[in-house]
Amino acid sequence: MDAAQPVSDYPPTPRTTPTRKRDRARYDAATVHAVLDADFICHLGFVVDGAPVVLPTIYARVDDRLYLHGSTGSRPMRTAAGDGLPVCLTVTLPQGIVLARSALHHSVNYRSVVAHGTARQVTDPEEVSLAFAALIDHMLPGRAADCRPPTPKEQAMTTVLRLDLREVSAKIRSGGVNDDPEDMGLAHWAGLLPLARVRQAPVPDPAMAPGTALPDYLRAAAP
Amino acid sequence: MDAAQPVSDYPPTPRTTPTRKRDRARYDAATVHAVLDADFICHLGFVVDGAPVVLPTIYARVDDRLYLHGSTGSRPMRTAAGDGLPVCLTVTLPQGIVLARSALHHSVNYRSVVAHGTARQVTDPEEVSLAFAALIDHMLPGRAADCRPPTPKEQAMTTVLRLDLREVSAKIRSGGVNDDPEDMGLAHWAGLLPLARVRQAPVPDPAMAPGTALPDYLRAAAP
Repeated sequence: MDAAQPVSDYPPTPRTTPTRKRDRARYDAATVHAVLDADFICHLGFVVDGAPVVLPTIYARVDDRLYLHGSTGSRPMRTAAGDGLPVCLTVTLPQGIVLARSALHHSVNYRSVVAHGTARQVTDPEEVSLAFAALIDHMLPGRAADCRPPTPKEQAMTTVLRLDLREVSAKIRSGGVNDDPEDMGLAHWAGLLPLARVRQAPVPDPAMAPGTALPDYLRAAAP
Repeated sequence: MDAAQPVSDYPPTPRTTPTRKRDRARYDAATVHAVLDADFICHLGFVVDGAPVVLPTIYARVDDRLYLHGSTGSRPMRTAAGDGLPVCLTVTLPQGIVLARSALHHSVNYRSVVAHGTARQVTDPEEVSLAFAALIDHMLPGRAADCRPPTPKEQAMTTVLRLDLREVSAKIRSGGVNDDPEDMGLAHWAGLLPLARVRQAPVPDPAMAPGTALPDYLRAAAP
């Protein structure tokens, strides 16, 4: 509808085209990647015996790939190791509560990404090692190089999955209050209550050798 | 396994019994409700054409019931209005990153709730009104009484769903680092990086009448 053609690095599909509020959808890699890089916990949906299951789990993005991991023995991991596991992976960053004069126009500002696809087990040892490091660095950039890497035995306890970013979209609700004109004179407080996730001061393990320096990658207060 | 029998207000089922780390599971209403009351955004999973879909949406808890809402015309809402919509509703509160000396023992402290069941449309007008108010008060307690309530026409644009809490469990990972004994001497910083969601200063709508007082329910800084 706009004069400028929106960027669409990830071509929209029926599943990534909202039936309502299409103006909130984004398909450009920059937006999708920015949302994915701003968090490290996703909600992973899959189907078990015809019913939905949604579990929180950590993820990492490397280029156009997402990595997940889980215990080798768990049911979704075993399914993924076979024919692959159809998943819907969703990341949501709440950014504020929109307080309108009318109940109906209350809303939430957020950025989210929904990715559809089939998660498959990574078997190449180099890619497994890369994924392990990415999962740790996605939580805390710089950390993977500052801990003991997994041994082959430890790697064998864990299944690493890859989900290629193909059928994916971001959704963004931003800005202020959208009340109906006839409600604008109502005397209720209206506006935005911003929300943010913050990192608090690191708490050292009591068993750590006294005097161990706080690493640079932990000094940054902001997430 | 403990001497004291754990409280189990929501009897465990195969779907709410983890295959691993069972000690993290809780089935008492106090814990489940506390997690549900600490957030207002859930990830709702359902199945469309055999494939999983996970979308973020707001929810409210009233006793042993969860309420959700959505546009009357949307596909999941139409399904729910018919035979009901089998869902998995998940709420996750990240509480910190656990930085172990070994990559494998990195973890996340969190509290989560996973509820399975069939979401059904609420048709009783009184319960619909109660659900609307609960959805707003769950975001910000006290707000529902301080905005214009929905008109019958506005209510008709929205489908309200109810999910009874029956097959539900909480999971909690808390505490510190669990490194293997042979790694305890490694010189890597170890400990916890706490995470928290905070509310920032409210931002008034520029169109609001100057001098409109900030309501008491917005004065509390803590979420």
